[in-house]
Amino acid sequence: MADQYALRTDAAGSPAPAALRWEEPPEGPVIVLLDQRRLPGEEVELVCTDVPALIEAIQGLAVRGAPLLGVAGAYGVALAAVRGFDVEESAGMLAGARPTAVNLAVGVGRALEAYRAAAKEGADARRAGEAALAEARAIHREDARASELMARHGLGLLDELLPGGAHQILTHCNTGSLVSGGDGTAFAVVKAAHEAGRLRRLWVDETRPLLQGARLTAYEAARAGMAYTVLADNAAGSLFAAGEVDAVLIGADRIAADGSVANKVGSYPLAVLAGYHHVPFVVVAPCSTVDPGTPDGAGIEVEQRPGNEVTEFPVTVPAPEAGAAPVTGVAVAPPGAQAYNPAFDVTPPELVTAIVTENGVVSPVTESALAELCDRSRSGNGMMSI
Amino acid sequence: MADQYALRTDAAGSPAPAALRWEEPPEGPVIVLLDQRRLPGEEVELVCTDVPALIEAIQGLAVRGAPLLGVAGAYGVALAAVRGFDVEESAGMLAGARPTAVNLAVGVGRALEAYRAAAKEGADARRAGEAALAEARAIHREDARASELMARHGLGLLDELLPGGAHQILTHCNTGSLVSGGDGTAFAVVKAAHEAGRLRRLWVDETRPLLQGARLTAYEAARAGMAYTVLADNAAGSLFAAGEVDAVLIGADRIAADGSVANKVGSYPLAVLAGYHHVPFVVVAPCSTVDPGTPDGAGIEVEQRPGNEVTEFPVTVPAPEAGAAPVTGVAVAPPGAQAYNPAFDVTPPELVTAIVTENGVVSPVTESALAELCDRSRSGNGMMSI
Repeated sequence: MADQYALRTDAAGSPAPAALRWEEPPEGPVIVLLDQRRLPGEEVELVCTDVPALIEAIQGLAVRGAPLLGVAGAYGVALAAVRGFDVEESAGMLAGARPTAVNLAVGVGRALEAYRAAAKEGADARRAGEAALAEARAIHREDARASELMARHGLGLLDELLPGGAHQILTHCNTGSLVSGGDGTAFAVVKAAHEAGRLRRLWVDETRPLLQGARLTAYEAARAGMAYTVLADNAAGSLFAAGEVDAVLIGADRIAADGSVANKVGSYPLAVLAGYHHVPFVVVAPCSTVDPGTPDGAGIEVEQRPGNEVTEFPVTVPAPEAGAAPVTGVAVAPPGAQAYNPAFDVTPPELVTAIVTENGVVSPVTESALAELCDRSRSGNGMMSI
Repeated sequence: MADQYALRTDAAGSPAPAALRWEEPPEGPVIVLLDQRRLPGEEVELVCTDVPALIEAIQGLAVRGAPLLGVAGAYGVALAAVRGFDVEESAGMLAGARPTAVNLAVGVGRALEAYRAAAKEGADARRAGEAALAEARAIHREDARASELMARHGLGLLDELLPGGAHQILTHCNTGSLVSGGDGTAFAVVKAAHEAGRLRRLWVDETRPLLQGARLTAYEAARAGMAYTVLADNAAGSLFAAGEVDAVLIGADRIAADGSVANKVGSYPLAVLAGYHHVPFVVVAPCSTVDPGTPDGAGIEVEQRPGNEVTEFPVTVPAPEAGAAPVTGVAVAPPGAQAYNPAFDVTPPELVTAIVTENGVVSPVTESALAELCDRSRSGNGMMSI
């Protein structure tokens, strides 16, 4: 069962509420999510008291972002265990809630494994649940720690590439604390530059069609007190031409073994523009994003999303009549218009200046250098050796 | 005074209603405009009975597009003359209605000149008004004729560049009959290819922030019975990478003497992508768009538009309460978000494969070849020698 309550919305400059947290009020443990569908207009928290509520939040995109889904899945297993539901069944349902987000299944699997191991060693249900919760907390901490390390390595790289400071950085989509247990990936580097006094401005691509940039990255930048400016994705070309972009920093959904980067659609055109203008194009992602099972960009299957994400505008406006449901898609194109709507695109390694991970930086991007850097994380049986 | 009436909206496949026409009902002549702000949802005509109503329509963007504004301005002078208003005063107001659209002032000037010349030769007010109207009709016809010639030359160029037929063409913004007395510029070429059976698909960039592609080009493509697909501007990169774009065809707002092309923001990134993928990037515009007074791209001043075009979404939705005004901008970004919103960008001539005009094609684009081609139009004292 899920419940909602609104937070204050006038707190610009203060830290954003956590995207996800575990709480233990007297009536029993819950997972509290910041509902990302309602941002930036409203900060509404969603309180999940059971796994079906969490699954609904995951499928409805109230909680999103690959690293954060791993954290959410692990806490979901712990919630089922601690509240006495069927843990195996709950884990199965959670792992399949969004089949393409591999982190979700990995997080669920780790928490389930911890639960099973404790039970096997004779722990009762309560103590086995505590083991699952401890594993979920470990994943959460690891993710936050990976963010810290990516931020540190990324900032070092920026200092090397752009020794003058006063960086003007362009980013795409949303890669901050809303998708992570920590400060995120590319956004964590931007935030570190801001805190070190070396960020002049963050250029925020609005990121059509779902506007994660204008809605979520702008929200996080405002919360962090950065100088930021939103732009139609279209307008990035003018910024490059005017010499107003010092570096592009983005995250990644999947990185193939050869260093090809799948990320939110619109990343590849930025890479081509950056290459044309000799501007560094930097990808920030944890080693868990690197998929050695995918040899190259051609092997990455691109998800095609429904056309109405393009032909209708994803706004929620009050219903024309009292009591009716709010309008959530306003038609823009003519009725029956067909749309091409790939969720992401693929940037070949030759257009990527560097990949920043929690283990360090790969530049130039080669298959062997990437494998060597990320093998460090795999040596710990899927655990990061940090 | 202006009046409005709705047309049918279920006529896909039939020709679009004229963007502008002169009518002479018994109660006196009027200018009838298709209200472009209401497309594609509704086809509503706006009937202007005097110059203030026409000016309101121009400033409110009910009628837009450089060539069409020239036609509208000329008819406005004729309307003032035929209806017995102060012609000189009306012409002055009209010419300044949108100061950056040079075609508007040129059209007004030509009709005013015809009126003055007739008056000087002893014509009474009625006959001088008829002279102004004849000039407006001439401009209208010239514009339609220029569209026909651009379509013919453009189709010839496509056949040369892409001899196989089955073209997949990508376009940006809106360049069809809504901006012209004829079939437009780039869209006229696409339409000619469609009618010749050589168009496989028109890729329609939605064209953020004002969505002229998704709203207007999709409407015109549907009306023309073309196979077309709308995409977020972001997604064009994926199409190029997949080899699904055979040529890019766009219009132009201004072309500098060296062949630098100012056009709707987002054109330059397409030019860079097209260059990277060895795809022809073709600009279609009448010679009146070439400005010999602007030596190069650096000399073109780029209009910065209000940020709320980006941070709010330009949808019109019913008011939350009965009787209240409809909501016309829905906030997307956080309150107070700043936006960078240039109206157009500049593509250097080395990225332009060809410029198609009513006089023929320039390729490669050089200052001397462009000047030579367009001097043919200037020899007729500003009139096109077609």
